[in-house]
Order: sequence, then C-alpha cells, then structure tokens
Amino acid sequence: VRIAVFGLGLLGGSVCKALRTADGNGHISAYDIDRSSLEDARRNGVIDDIIETQEAVIHCDVAVIALPVKSSISAIRAVLDSTDDSAMVVDLGSVKTGVINGVIDHRNSSRFVPCHPMAGSERSGFAGSSPDILSGANVIITPHIKNTPDIISRAVKFWEMTGMKVTIADCTDHDVAVAYTSHLPHLLSAALVCAEKKGLPSDMSNEPFRGRGFRDMTRLASGSPAVWEDICEMNAAQIVKAIDTMTGILCDLRRELAENPVDGKALREFLEEAVRLKKEY
Amino acid sequence: VRIAVFGLGLLGGSVCKALRTADGNGHISAYDIDRSSLEDARRNGVIDDIIETQEAVIHCDVAVIALPVKSSISAIRAVLDSTDDSAMVVDLGSVKTGVINGVIDHRNSSRFVPCHPMAGSERSGFAGSSPDILSGANVIITPHIKNTPDIISRAVKFWEMTGMKVTIADCTDHDVAVAYTSHLPHLLSAALVCAEKKGLPSDMSNEPFRGRGFRDMTRLASGSPAVWEDICEMNAAQIVKAIDTMTGILCDLRRELAENPVDGKALREFLEEAVRLKKEY
Repeated sequence: VRIAVFGLGLLGGSVCKALRTADGNGHISAYDIDRSSLEDARRNGVIDDIIETQEAVIHCDVAVIALPVKSSISAIRAVLDSTDDSAMVVDLGSVKTGVINGVIDHRNSSRFVPCHPMAGSERSGFAGSSPDILSGANVIITPHIKNTPDIISRAVKFWEMTGMKVTIADCTDHDVAVAYTSHLPHLLSAALVCAEKKGLPSDMSNEPFRGRGFRDMTRLASGSPAVWEDICEMNAAQIVKAIDTMTGILCDLRRELAENPVDGKALREFLEEAVRLKKEY
Repeated sequence: VRIAVFGLGLLGGSVCKALRTADGNGHISAYDIDRSSLEDARRNGVIDDIIETQEAVIHCDVAVIALPVKSSISAIRAVLDSTDDSAMVVDLGSVKTGVINGVIDHRNSSRFVPCHPMAGSERSGFAGSSPDILSGANVIITPHIKNTPDIISRAVKFWEMTGMKVTIADCTDHDVAVAYTSHLPHLLSAALVCAEKKGLPSDMSNEPFRGRGFRDMTRLASGSPAVWEDICEMNAAQIVKAIDTMTGILCDLRRELAENPVDGKALREFLEEAVRLKKEY
C-alpha cells in the first residue's frame, strides 16, 4: 500500500511506524513543515521519501492528514485536489462535525473519510510517536452523506492494519461524547496544574505533596497547546456544555462541604455513585 | 521491631508487607473489624498474630493507626492508653490538623507522631495492598508541639524501613497542600465520572470514546468512599478553597469558549502555562 502522511507529529509518526511493521512492502511518503523530523524519519527507515510541498501531486492509495484540526480542513481540500481519483483521504482530528462541514462541498469529498484515533501521549511531536499508542486503542469513523459503504470498508481495513479497534459513529454523537471523555479531561488536567500553582503559597515546595494520583491527573496537561487550541475552538459548543455539567457537580459538592457540619450523607452518595459507575466501565 | 497495626486495609496491609520484607526478625500484630482479612494475612505470613480487641494492651515498639481519618482520633487515644510508655504511635491519615487537635490533650500525646504516606491505589482493602505503593513514594511527618526530636527521628527511621521518602512539614501547610495535590484531584476524578454519565444520552454507548486519558483521569474515582468521606469532612475548609480556585479557572475558560469567535489568545496562554508549569515538576 502506498501511503502519504501530511504532518509527522505524534499521531502521524505513530501511524507511519505502525504501518511500517504491518506492511513490509508498503511505501510511505511524508510531508511536514519541520524538515528535521522528516530527515530523521527517513534516516531511520520510518518513511521512504519526503513530500516537498503540501501541493505536490501524490500517487497514493491512502493520504493521512495528521495536522491540528483547524488547519486540517484546507489540507484535506488540497489533498483531495492533488491525489488520484482512487486515493482515500483520512484525517485524524479530535472534532468531526466542523471538519465534515468544511470539506463536504468539495467535488471529491466522497473520497474523504473522517476518522479519530482515540490515542495520545503526554509527549508530543515525532519524538513521542510510537505504534504502541495505537495498538488496541479505539478509532472512531464518522461517515458523511457522500461516503459509500465501499470506501468506509477500505477505511476500516486501513485502521485494522495499524492495530486499532474500529467503531462507526454519527459525527454529532462523536463530538458530544469526546467533549466528555477527551476534551473536558484535558482541560481539567491543565486547570488542575494551574489551580495548584494559583492556590498554594509561592514559597511552598509542593513536590513532596505530589503523589501518583496527582501525576496521573496532570499528565494530559503536557499535550501540545497548538493541537488543543484547535480542538477547543472547533468543539467549543459541546465543551461549554461539558464544563457546565462539571462545574454544576463541583458547586453542589462545594455547598455540601461548606455546611457545618458537613452533610456526610450527600457526600457519601456522590462518592459511592462514582465508584459504582466506574465499575461498569 | 514489634509492630501493632490497627486497620488492615490498603495502607495498613501495605505497611505490614513492606515491614515483613525489611525486617525478617520483626513481629507484626494486627487488628481489624474484618476477621477474614486478618485470618488471610496470618495464613499468608503477612502478620504473626491477631489482636482480638482494639482495647487490648499491646506491648509493641510502634503502633500504626491505619483507619479512616475521622475514626482514627478515638483509636489513637485508645492505643495511647493501652500501649507501653516506650511505644510510638503513628497514624496514616490524609488530614493532619484535625487529628492533632483531637489527640494533643491526651497525657501520652508526646508519643503520637502524625504521618501521611502519600500513597494509594484504585484498589481498596487488604486485597489491594502492596509494598510497591509505598516504595519510593513520599511520606509527610507533621510534628506537633509535644513531640521531641528523638521521637521524630524514630518516626523517620520507621518510614525509611518501608522504603518511603520522608518530608517534615507544618500540619497546616500539609492540609493546604494536599487539598490541591490529593483531595481536589480525587473529587475531580469522581466528578468527571458523574459528569460523563449525566451529560451523555443514556442510550449512547460511551465505551469506544474512552481512551487512556479518560481512564487515567477517572482512576482515583474508585477509591474507598468511607476513606474519602472522612477526608472531605476533616479538611472541608481547605477543599472548599481548592474547589473555588478550580471552578474560577474553569469559569474563565468557559467564558472564552462561549465567545464567538473563541478568544484563541487567552485559551492558548492557558494551555501553554499548564505545559510550562508541568515541565517544572
């Protein structure tokens, strides 16, 4: 299979590495604005050749758009222009409705399959990429009205080659769900890092008080700001609703804790509900 | 060393297991309301004998009170009554000021050293206990006015035997710091589990949308409700301040995301600050 990857960062690099192992006879080309990642990847055999400009005409079976989600729209359109009629174009963006709306009117949009590999890392860029972050993780495909069953099944096969588990979902359902399962958790993690800094005296050494739980809860905060700014802007409406649900729960909790004596019963019910729900996962 | 452990749960059990390895000649006795954990621990050689009642007179060098923090106060007082004058009594509670205030007037309070091993697990009870959760983790000792340097250095040596790194801190500083680094993270984790349930349609299958980030951010939510209810009640004043700091940050973020277009600059600064602060850890 001939693959062209646009954006050789955390996810783009991980896709290249996974495909390299899965298909020894495949040919992988890549484009990135960071020339040094490309040279590095070629030297290490992760890619076969470098695509010089984003507008270059590419003969490939699958083009993978692995860019921050806002800039991915123009890149998907450009690659739908420059690739063969037989080439499938997939993106990896964390928000689907806005990308579909930005691409659907393109004359070749039937060849574009919106995808979201639910994989990440506290590391960012090509240096953090690894096939391990894809292996066994979920990838969501959100077909649009121009897609045929045939191209969706090509996309399913493509993702199965990378070791991912495929789920087909409606794009709005996707954007609502990931607001809670991915975007809100990222913002909570970043906000927790900032809250600890803001809330504690600046002359206090917090390090001894940071246990494994704190490290886990702040791991996501290290994610790429460029990637997450795009996600937040593109899924703002759903994220606002998720923040409102979250702050509603925190405000109830705060009211209970501010009572004197604390209403242990309501607090206990909240903690027990969380344990019960978590057991169902 | 002769050790008596009161409460053979996650932390009490982990302390027994760590000491068993560190001191082959030591003698470990334990008390718990759950007889089956005690029998299990004795059968497996984790403890040497069972203490029949919490009021039994115990000849030991160190008594470890490993109970939920509210009930630990009366247990510390009882064990200060029933132990030899040479016995040191340590607790493991996640809140220190309230415990010290509840014990300081006891005639033997000089023998009580307030401690907090910053260790936990998504598992709870003796079944989840392991010396690994202590090894390399921090333990905070918060001396009170009746403690002598001699007993503090005995406490330091005790914790070093379990493989933990010791930090000495003021009890108020401790309670303020852990509100941000431990108690708020736990409540965020539990609240995120409840928010996802509340925010998403009940007929939606959320499982495919839950990636590694979500699993990490909701891991703490599985912690024992009995343990966490006590912690929240005992450190309510500090936790309320931490929740206020957190919801303040989330409200700013919500306001930015609700603007149309989104103020990308403020959002980017927030995300970059989190990455920058996290790098300093």
